[in-house]
Amino acid sequence: MYTHETKIRVRYGETDQMGYLYYGHYAQYYEVGRAEMIRSLGLSYRALEEEHGVMMPVMTLNMRFVRPAHYDEEVTVRTTLRELPSTFITFHMEIFNEVGKLMNGGSVKLCFVEVKSNKTIATPSVLLDCLKPYFTSPA
Amino acid sequence: MYTHETKIRVRYGETDQMGYLYYGHYAQYYEVGRAEMIRSLGLSYRALEEEHGVMMPVMTLNMRFVRPAHYDEEVTVRTTLRELPSTFITFHMEIFNEVGKLMNGGSVKLCFVEVKSNKTIATPSVLLDCLKPYFTSPA
Amino acid sequence: MYTHETKIRVRYGETDQMGYLYYGHYAQYYEVGRAEMIRSLGLSYRALEEEHGVMMPVMTLNMRFVRPAHYDEEVTVRTTLRELPSTFITFHMEIFNEVGKLMNGGSVKLCFVEVKSNKTIATPSVLLDCLKPYFTSPA
Amino acid sequence: MYTHETKIRVRYGETDQMGYLYYGHYAQYYEVGRAEMIRSLGLSYRALEEEHGVMMPVMTLNMRFVRPAHYDEEVTVRTTLRELPSTFITFHMEIFNEVGKLMNGGSVKLCFVEVKSNKTIATPSVLLDCLKPYFTSPA
Repeated sequence: MYTHETKIRVRYGETDQMGYLYYGHYAQYYEVGRAEMIRSLGLSYRALEEEHGVMMPVMTLNMRFVRPAHYDEEVTVRTTLRELPSTFITFHMEIFNEVGKLMNGGSVKLCFVEVKSNKTIATPSVLLDCLKPYFTSPA
Repeated sequence: MYTHETKIRVRYGETDQMGYLYYGHYAQYYEVGRAEMIRSLGLSYRALEEEHGVMMPVMTLNMRFVRPAHYDEEVTVRTTLRELPSTFITFHMEIFNEVGKLMNGGSVKLCFVEVKSNKTIATPSVLLDCLKPYFTSPA
Repeated sequence: MYTHETKIRVRYGETDQMGYLYYGHYAQYYEVGRAEMIRSLGLSYRALEEEHGVMMPVMTLNMRFVRPAHYDEEVTVRTTLRELPSTFITFHMEIFNEVGKLMNGGSVKLCFVEVKSNKTIATPSVLLDCLKPYFTSPA
Repeated sequence: MYTHETKIRVRYGETDQMGYLYYGHYAQYYEVGRAEMIRSLGLSYRALEEEHGVMMPVMTLNMRFVRPAHYDEEVTVRTTLRELPSTFITFHMEIFNEVGKLMNGGSVKLCFVEVKSNKTIATPSVLLDCLKPYFTSPA
């Protein structure tokens, strides 16, 4: 398992007239969560695209909304990989408010596409190698 | 069953550097789909909030991405209610490209909240009455 | 002079907690306005990029906010070219509410960049030829 | 004069198919810049709205685009007040890339509206008092 947490402050332009973080913006918070997780491994999503020629389009997105988020709250986005990625990579997401209550939970599944050929490929070794130490099975 | 279709043209600012409609914007397309469905019933979501004092926060969102959408494509958003809403209302969503291929499918479940008391309520009768004719059971 | 009008309905996700169309979204309405103007000429911005290899990055943006726009209002975006473009093209923008009152006015200046060389170029002839009939001087 | 700097990392969903930070998102970066400036004074824009009952709608926005920003760049947003606000408050904005080059410059002018009466008011004293020490004239 590999888990990473990052913080995002809700912007005014992300609220709606209900006074809540608009439900459509959680997908972008998920994006920031997984980008920061990848950075925490010593890689970057940007380098995956630019240097390794791999894009990661989203296949499925699932979320449940538990508590609303408000303007200026600094929420914690926790991103978890429960298993080593193979053809797909699934990020499990939780968003917590400032007192640690769950606001939103979900998951997002992506695949890997080689930019050059526009074909799906398995998890690039550059990413897999960074993750393996966190998923070693007991002897 | 009740189904409604509306069209949305993909804006430049909604694309990302992959050249696709960013995955986070589909939630807004879903929002437009259900708002236009409600309008097709002779109501409006705006009137539900302003005149009837009812907000509809989202509880769950699920989507799968089948084909990417591109800038300037005019996509068709099909919104379907498969059953009469009670405590919750679930909109089933499909987005098609200009040649009728499915690009995205999903569902979004919302509840009803009375603005005044900030408490969940059952489906407002103003909405239920509009929907009933489409869900009458055979004798 | 060449003028074109298009309509946009304010989405829920575009409002903020003040209950207004968030000020940051007007730039996207301007984008839709100029794209629809170009379409009205028998061209499309998409074709300019894909077929003619020309991008149009924005150089300056100016706007004044006169009246707020609200959720579900169908606003009219009026886009005007006051002169034939040369090195730059300046779109003059006005946004009106449903009773014809001005909500927002401004202008946006763009240049033309050849995708291949990433260099600025003069107005592509394909666009200029469409515009000339509207700017012919009297004999 | 009062100046404050804050950093923002460009999100994937904020890029467009040109591969640049979409021009419409700079307004939100400006919003973050002024919110963080206000926080640096020991206040918060949120408290201004919630506790002091004051909203700050935008009156004018001007920006020029000097260099494009790209995905994952951490830009610096510098927000400057050149004079004490009275009826209006004007934030002068500069956005720099990671090597200190100017990417975008502009200004945004806002007024103060009392939520209760929906009328414009002068700069609230709670804000003015925080700013005065930075604008004292020499004896």
